[in-house]
Amino acid sequence: MQRTVGRMLRTNVERPMAAPDALASCIQACLACAQACTACADACIAGRAPVGLERCIRISLDCADLCSTTARILTRQLKPDLGLVTALLDLCASACESCAIECRRHASTFLVTHVCAAICHETYDECRRLVPLTADAARAHH
Amino acid sequence: MQRTVGRMLRTNVERPMAAPDALASCIQACLACAQACTACADACIAGRAPVGLERCIRISLDCADLCSTTARILTRQLKPDLGLVTALLDLCASACESCAIECRRHASTFLVTHVCAAICHETYDECRRLVPLTADAARAHH
Amino acid sequence: MQRTVGRMLRTNVERPMAAPDALASCIQACLACAQACTACADACIAGRAPVGLERCIRISLDCADLCSTTARILTRQLKPDLGLVTALLDLCASACESCAIECRRHASTFLVTHVCAAICHETYDECRRLVPLTADAARAHH
Amino acid sequence: MQRTVGRMLRTNVERPMAAPDALASCIQACLACAQACTACADACIAGRAPVGLERCIRISLDCADLCSTTARILTRQLKPDLGLVTALLDLCASACESCAIECRRHASTFLVTHVCAAICHETYDECRRLVPLTADAARAHH
Repeated sequence: MQRTVGRMLRTNVERPMAAPDALASCIQACLACAQACTACADACIAGRAPVGLERCIRISLDCADLCSTTARILTRQLKPDLGLVTALLDLCASACESCAIECRRHASTFLVTHVCAAICHETYDECRRLVPLTADAARAHH
Repeated sequence: MQRTVGRMLRTNVERPMAAPDALASCIQACLACAQACTACADACIAGRAPVGLERCIRISLDCADLCSTTARILTRQLKPDLGLVTALLDLCASACESCAIECRRHASTFLVTHVCAAICHETYDECRRLVPLTADAARAHH
Repeated sequence: MQRTVGRMLRTNVERPMAAPDALASCIQACLACAQACTACADACIAGRAPVGLERCIRISLDCADLCSTTARILTRQLKPDLGLVTALLDLCASACESCAIECRRHASTFLVTHVCAAICHETYDECRRLVPLTADAARAHH
Repeated sequence: MQRTVGRMLRTNVERPMAAPDALASCIQACLACAQACTACADACIAGRAPVGLERCIRISLDCADLCSTTARILTRQLKPDLGLVTALLDLCASACESCAIECRRHASTFLVTHVCAAICHETYDECRRLVPLTADAARAHH
């Protein structure tokens, strides 16, 4: 799939809003994370664990919504508001971090949360790596 | 619809994350704004205006996605991450403000952007009004 | 909000894909239903009812996603694929009906599902009412 | 990413609603298609092609929304309504087919639509391949 994301960026007539490899990699991570968090919430609703999974379900649902929206907004190259994009990356990174922390608390007893925590952590890294690039572009643009 | 939003909040077993009236009002504004921005982008794609509408289309699509996600996250009362919610309200307010400003630039020649600017402005106000409430709740919770 | 939905339709340069009042009314119902279903799932996850709420949570999450997408697609008036729109209305009506039936099973013990069932039922009606209009337009167009 | 989708299915406590490989492959295709269609609409809005791209933009936006929702609903394994899932796969396949046909019309002059048509076609295949599996499971369940 990263191949598709990258090809869509390279065939767009608009210049990508940031270095294409970092951008494609972040978009793909956000999509994978949205999927993993949706699956994690579903598995946690199904699973009756000894400890409460409510907080884990909640942050997973929120993280899925934020990652989906971030993937969409990063996918559009036409006249982005780079200040807004930077703030969104920051927020998405926070959601991924919170979700990773919460998921990791249940990782030993509930395997699905272990897989979700790993992809959340990776998506956190991807978002944080993109922040200085879009922030620089925002400054250059003003 | 505000009636429905309010009734869902009042019949939830969880305490709402903020004052129910302000919360219901903000959720409804976000939903209305997501719809208006989707319609505005559609109309701008259709319309061949003398000046370029690319920036208006772009920010409208982004604002629609952010408002939808904000409405969803505000709708969930179970164990919210109130710091995250506050940062999201802040971001959503910025998107609404940018979209209102851009739409207003075309309001005299392109009526649909005038209607969209008004609802964006209203949603900006609703989000800004909720920020101190969720920020206070976040502080009280820690 | 219906006022806003209607105003966006009337100020669009494109002709609406169906009678504007029926269309605006259906869009609004879908948005309200997406919100109610999201809230219903949240409340059911929080609530520890004597009987299992898993099926109710599941169909509520699905119905919320389908209603959001239906609202978006009905909002766009530019060159719709009316056959696709008709099939989507049909599917959205089915989801609303299933969700209403499931929610009603818990309505006496769990008030939030009673409110959600009512809005699901209303949205089912709105979608079904629109089907012959978009189906006729699809035939006229071919 | 297919690896992540598959791992989330295998670590879920619920049995997958269909053969895990076909299911994971379809979820991934839907996510890739949603991304490609969002990128395609963006590039078509930016591009000033000799022929009108309005129909291409419209179906790409709709296809993106439907593919996102299909990916989400396929991701949840807890108590699915398999009749609804089957109807959704059918609808998503139709959207992908329409989008592939429309994109292909511009493929020689507008490279981005060529890439999008390919992924739409692949996702059409994935959805059609899953239909008999979920339809059988729906029958077995009744």
